[in-house]
Amino acid sequence: MNPFVYDIPVKVYFGENQFCFLGKELARFGKRVLLTYGGGSIKKIGLYDVILSELAKEGLEVYELPGIEPNPRIESVRAGAQCCKEHHIDVILAVGGGSTLDAAKFMAAGACVDHDPWEFFTREAPIEKALPLVTVLTLSATGSEMDCGGVISNLATQDKLGRLAPPLLPKVSFLDPTVTYSVSPYQTACGAADMLNHILEVYFTTEHDLYMLDCFMEGLMKTILRYTPIAMEHPDNYEARANLMWTSSWAINGFINGGKQHDWSCHPMEHELSARYDITHGLGLAIITPRWLHYCLDESTVAKYVQFGVNVFNIDASLPPMDIARESIRQLSDFLFKTLKLDDTFTKVGISPDDIPLMAQKACRWGTINGLKPLTPKDVEAIFTMCI
Amino acid sequence: MNPFVYDIPVKVYFGENQFCFLGKELARFGKRVLLTYGGGSIKKIGLYDVILSELAKEGLEVYELPGIEPNPRIESVRAGAQCCKEHHIDVILAVGGGSTLDAAKFMAAGACVDHDPWEFFTREAPIEKALPLVTVLTLSATGSEMDCGGVISNLATQDKLGRLAPPLLPKVSFLDPTVTYSVSPYQTACGAADMLNHILEVYFTTEHDLYMLDCFMEGLMKTILRYTPIAMEHPDNYEARANLMWTSSWAINGFINGGKQHDWSCHPMEHELSARYDITHGLGLAIITPRWLHYCLDESTVAKYVQFGVNVFNIDASLPPMDIARESIRQLSDFLFKTLKLDDTFTKVGISPDDIPLMAQKACRWGTINGLKPLTPKDVEAIFTMCI
Repeated sequence: MNPFVYDIPVKVYFGENQFCFLGKELARFGKRVLLTYGGGSIKKIGLYDVILSELAKEGLEVYELPGIEPNPRIESVRAGAQCCKEHHIDVILAVGGGSTLDAAKFMAAGACVDHDPWEFFTREAPIEKALPLVTVLTLSATGSEMDCGGVISNLATQDKLGRLAPPLLPKVSFLDPTVTYSVSPYQTACGAADMLNHILEVYFTTEHDLYMLDCFMEGLMKTILRYTPIAMEHPDNYEARANLMWTSSWAINGFINGGKQHDWSCHPMEHELSARYDITHGLGLAIITPRWLHYCLDESTVAKYVQFGVNVFNIDASLPPMDIARESIRQLSDFLFKTLKLDDTFTKVGISPDDIPLMAQKACRWGTINGLKPLTPKDVEAIFTMCI
Repeated sequence: MNPFVYDIPVKVYFGENQFCFLGKELARFGKRVLLTYGGGSIKKIGLYDVILSELAKEGLEVYELPGIEPNPRIESVRAGAQCCKEHHIDVILAVGGGSTLDAAKFMAAGACVDHDPWEFFTREAPIEKALPLVTVLTLSATGSEMDCGGVISNLATQDKLGRLAPPLLPKVSFLDPTVTYSVSPYQTACGAADMLNHILEVYFTTEHDLYMLDCFMEGLMKTILRYTPIAMEHPDNYEARANLMWTSSWAINGFINGGKQHDWSCHPMEHELSARYDITHGLGLAIITPRWLHYCLDESTVAKYVQFGVNVFNIDASLPPMDIARESIRQLSDFLFKTLKLDDTFTKVGISPDDIPLMAQKACRWGTINGLKPLTPKDVEAIFTMCI
């Protein structure tokens, strides 16, 4: 059990009818706002108008940068950083899912340096400050609304790289579950797979845990299992959307870590898929996660699988440990591929087996992945091969 | 499900060997530090020396106010506020359990006003600012290290009154589980009863919950059930002390509330006991809590008791709901009075039945208590009578 520092000063407005506080919160940081968002769905659902009207009430000066892509591109980050510099932006307002929020984080950091923002990823250029960021979340998935990380794609180099830095933490996030009523069943499912993986990456380690955090993680997973099917079938079920939304934040804001310091395993593997094929991150994770769990299961790791199976899936604790472990992976797969109806193979999503060796190499670009089991390129290749 | 604002910007250093960051954190706020603590146990365990040496490394100017009482008195608060004014203190460092931390909060607020600090309680004088507060926790119980409230006693008027205000929130808290190794089995038990009650006050309501938070609360309660007996028997068990310590903070920092807005029930009742008899807060809560649950159990509330019994005590879900509910209260009582060995009646702790009517009146001084069931003075009298 390692010592750790808990420091998550994000202020969250959770629930309906909270946008009346948006203008006031932005105005704390200044007058000039860069509003960035994705493909325009926020206009369809009326959110764009609500936001502009709240900003107008405070007399804020608004510059817009729409069109942030899913798997956001470094070009968008560059454009945002440039816009901030040109117009002396005081605060960035990101409205969208994890892609828009991630892009906004690196715009905010890029605005404070002279070099190309891609250097935050390629040469770990320091991130010592960033413009203040306020977010309005429209998709429960990545947890970007309450963490200090983000992932950016560079199609030119077929790279998708992540970076964490405290100055990237949003100052204020607005989480209104009704905003997610229009999220499709498919995107709801991908978001759930993403959250589930965030928890599993932390839950499944050989490091010693705080039991209270294990209980919390199991509760978060049970919440996802319980409410995702409801949200897919009844998109405007408030209870389901609210539970999923708050779960998305707590799955990755750092609280569940409690001092664990291992590498995440599935994320670097998945980033290679979406870097090359531009598939939805949560979908890629769904395909990889159960195979990773299979690959890492042995006598030295089985105890955690048993805990998972018994506490999350209510599998009979009196069965032999290996049986419980395999059944827990089976039930996880059923949830992802039957209940959530996600594609379960590389073939179905169009990933060519020919790319596996290179993707495996790149997944280990920083060296062996030290998670539940150490993974070399050879191991990653084996896991990818199980996904075909 | 009500909207809510989540805003807990306390930075926490958790674990061993983190005091090397104490001086640096204090120095962020200035040079002149008021160090306040309790009866001197921090000297016995060597913590006092560690802290002074860390403060010396940063060249901080230290003023001391020792002797903060359990059930801290308004006189101590007055002395602390006065000292801050006289010596132009920049930051308060409170080292102790909830009593010392609570007292320090109102010293910090009292230092910023001209009136008597008791007016924060009697006439709700505004708390708009406070000196920055840094804490070192030595007892897992009240959660004061991560919340913005406190309770102060006035022996002259036999009042014990609480107050919440965001400026009272500590800036930084140091939670080192090894510091609690010297806490006696009895105080460990009282602390556990306190934490358990903090959760039950929120868990048991008729308001609609976020399921994910219910899961979290159940996990916190299971953590207390699991680790308190271990910590009582093996005071230097790191895993037990660590789980209890982090649980104490999360039981009351506001996260589990998730927008619930009901009154707490047992706390105003207990404050009347400890105001008149100076008993340990957690002990008073232990005596009252199971009786309160008995008193509020009926067809309209039984569902929550069933959830509690099944999820926390693993009671067979196929039993009739009322049976599960009663069994859950019985198991809670067994934990408090058999496992934790706490006294289970007013008689045993020396509370006279003659005081019941007046204490019941005062518990409802702000009107009917609107919790799981509305409680008038008559109801409180009935609950107190069950405690004799």
